[in-house]
Amino acid sequence: MKQESQLVEKILRRLGSKSSSSFSPWRLSLGPGDDAAVLSPSSRSELVLSCDASLEGVHFRRATHPPSSIGYKSLARAASDLAAMGAAPRYYLLTVGVPNTLKAAWLDEFLGGMRRAARELGMTIIGGDTTTSSQVIVSITVLGEIGHGLALRRSGARPGDLIYVSGTLGEAQLGLEFALAGGGRDPRLRAELQPHLYPTIRIALGSWLARRRIPSAMMDISDGLSTDLTRLCQASGVGARVYADRIRRVRIPTSLPPKLRRRKLDPLQMALHGGEDYELLFTVPKKKSGGLKKCPEFSSLTLVGEITAAKTILLISNAGRVEKLKPRGWDPF
Amino acid sequence: MKQESQLVEKILRRLGSKSSSSFSPWRLSLGPGDDAAVLSPSSRSELVLSCDASLEGVHFRRATHPPSSIGYKSLARAASDLAAMGAAPRYYLLTVGVPNTLKAAWLDEFLGGMRRAARELGMTIIGGDTTTSSQVIVSITVLGEIGHGLALRRSGARPGDLIYVSGTLGEAQLGLEFALAGGGRDPRLRAELQPHLYPTIRIALGSWLARRRIPSAMMDISDGLSTDLTRLCQASGVGARVYADRIRRVRIPTSLPPKLRRRKLDPLQMALHGGEDYELLFTVPKKKSGGLKKCPEFSSLTLVGEITAAKTILLISNAGRVEKLKPRGWDPF
Repeated sequence: MKQESQLVEKILRRLGSKSSSSFSPWRLSLGPGDDAAVLSPSSRSELVLSCDASLEGVHFRRATHPPSSIGYKSLARAASDLAAMGAAPRYYLLTVGVPNTLKAAWLDEFLGGMRRAARELGMTIIGGDTTTSSQVIVSITVLGEIGHGLALRRSGARPGDLIYVSGTLGEAQLGLEFALAGGGRDPRLRAELQPHLYPTIRIALGSWLARRRIPSAMMDISDGLSTDLTRLCQASGVGARVYADRIRRVRIPTSLPPKLRRRKLDPLQMALHGGEDYELLFTVPKKKSGGLKKCPEFSSLTLVGEITAAKTILLISNAGRVEKLKPRGWDPF
Repeated sequence: MKQESQLVEKILRRLGSKSSSSFSPWRLSLGPGDDAAVLSPSSRSELVLSCDASLEGVHFRRATHPPSSIGYKSLARAASDLAAMGAAPRYYLLTVGVPNTLKAAWLDEFLGGMRRAARELGMTIIGGDTTTSSQVIVSITVLGEIGHGLALRRSGARPGDLIYVSGTLGEAQLGLEFALAGGGRDPRLRAELQPHLYPTIRIALGSWLARRRIPSAMMDISDGLSTDLTRLCQASGVGARVYADRIRRVRIPTSLPPKLRRRKLDPLQMALHGGEDYELLFTVPKKKSGGLKKCPEFSSLTLVGEITAAKTILLISNAGRVEKLKPRGWDPF
């Protein structure tokens, strides 16, 4: 990479085309290339903003992860915070730092992955910053849109509310285990790696739930159910009771690479504490739970427990044994 | 730093108080702490967005720069892109990566510097992300506000327009030279270091110019006049003629530290190519130049040249010698 201007040009060539699925009442008055981007708001909706960093050596390894996955996931995981509010993703700003020695092919694949995520999520790049850096760093700010007053917070859960989780938990950790065991680029492991390398973000589900005002609280599970449920309960000033046998959990394949056979992969532990599933965790007042049946993704939802007034989080085992569920999910520190 | 939650708590304790100078028609519906922030727009104004990264080893050195300066400048330089559009700064999102071994006192001073910048700029933190990292990384997204259609772009300069620059150029580079020569924390060098460590951002000037629709094009000088004027001319499809003797340039102190005496510090070269002055560069149609006299900061403005149809940028020396002005400012690569 010779000059910043060349990198910017490349990024905009790969990512700069306007997403066709953007039918936002927010108009982009000025896109990338000037000092800043300009958005013309619509008074019919609110703007939802979040940011997320993906760093080499912390969130990914260049030796392990395909560059297209790093590009895809950097944007997808940022967009998951929008899904967690029930917002529709619209725009993003990309800050990227790359070593001077980085190969052009790596950057092409990285941008290709991000382009695919942007297309799937309906997002358009509106700005960013580029710099040299000793390791690859990616920092993304995402902007979404939601009807006035519809954003779903973490703080609304009340005792008696039912706790729901979308999808299957622990699959992203299984994919990570496969990737770390050296299979990150093995095409035969595609199904197992997919949830870790190219996670699906629950945009449509989050948006459906918010529009119908069904949940009392919602967030995404990015750092593991145990950690994220703790956060939701703390924000709401409540506790929870979770039934272990209800949790839809990852299935461990019977044939495992030698490195993984030695590790004891426990599906329940992976479902409780594994990070990066990007599923939605939400609470529903009992009287509203009937409305969930109309959800197009109803079959992917699992009722895993209920909110309690006592501020502890309890895990009830199959045999009825009760233990405290401690936050043991992902923490970068 | 033991846990991410402790770092987040510290950041919000230091930066989280709402700025008192925020009298925006944009209402913050939901601040930091949830999955995302929510803004309620006003249909009377547009939203201006930009982002900027400050990395250890690229933009600052921990051994050279006081932590409060790193915090101050990370936010100030991002806000300069808002000034460059004529927008009023309102909100920011802060992504920060710090080594596990970072001392708490360093972080306190860093956040103290950022808090001071936020207060001076009238900005409120609305979100962010924290992570561990081998070196300190700071990535900031800033949001500003401007009346509909008033944002000043780089692309509007036309042949015959006059070229203005605010302030004195090259002072930030002189400060950098002092800092690199080992004086970064020397209280006797405060005046010389100030423009490098705690740059003043031209918010009021940018806003005044945009409201009166005086400039045809505007940007901030972050990478040096030669580089940034080239960008403005490229965006506008024009060239320029700049008069060397007109450029208000840094004064080199008579007594210099030994390390600096050996370097030949040329005020004109520093003014032309030195980065980080964060002054405004703008072009004004001749018929509108009279309106500039009413500017409260008129005395800080210098007419340095004019826009030409020929797409070259020429520097006219005191003796009338004409040479091409090549973009030789800062490039991170």
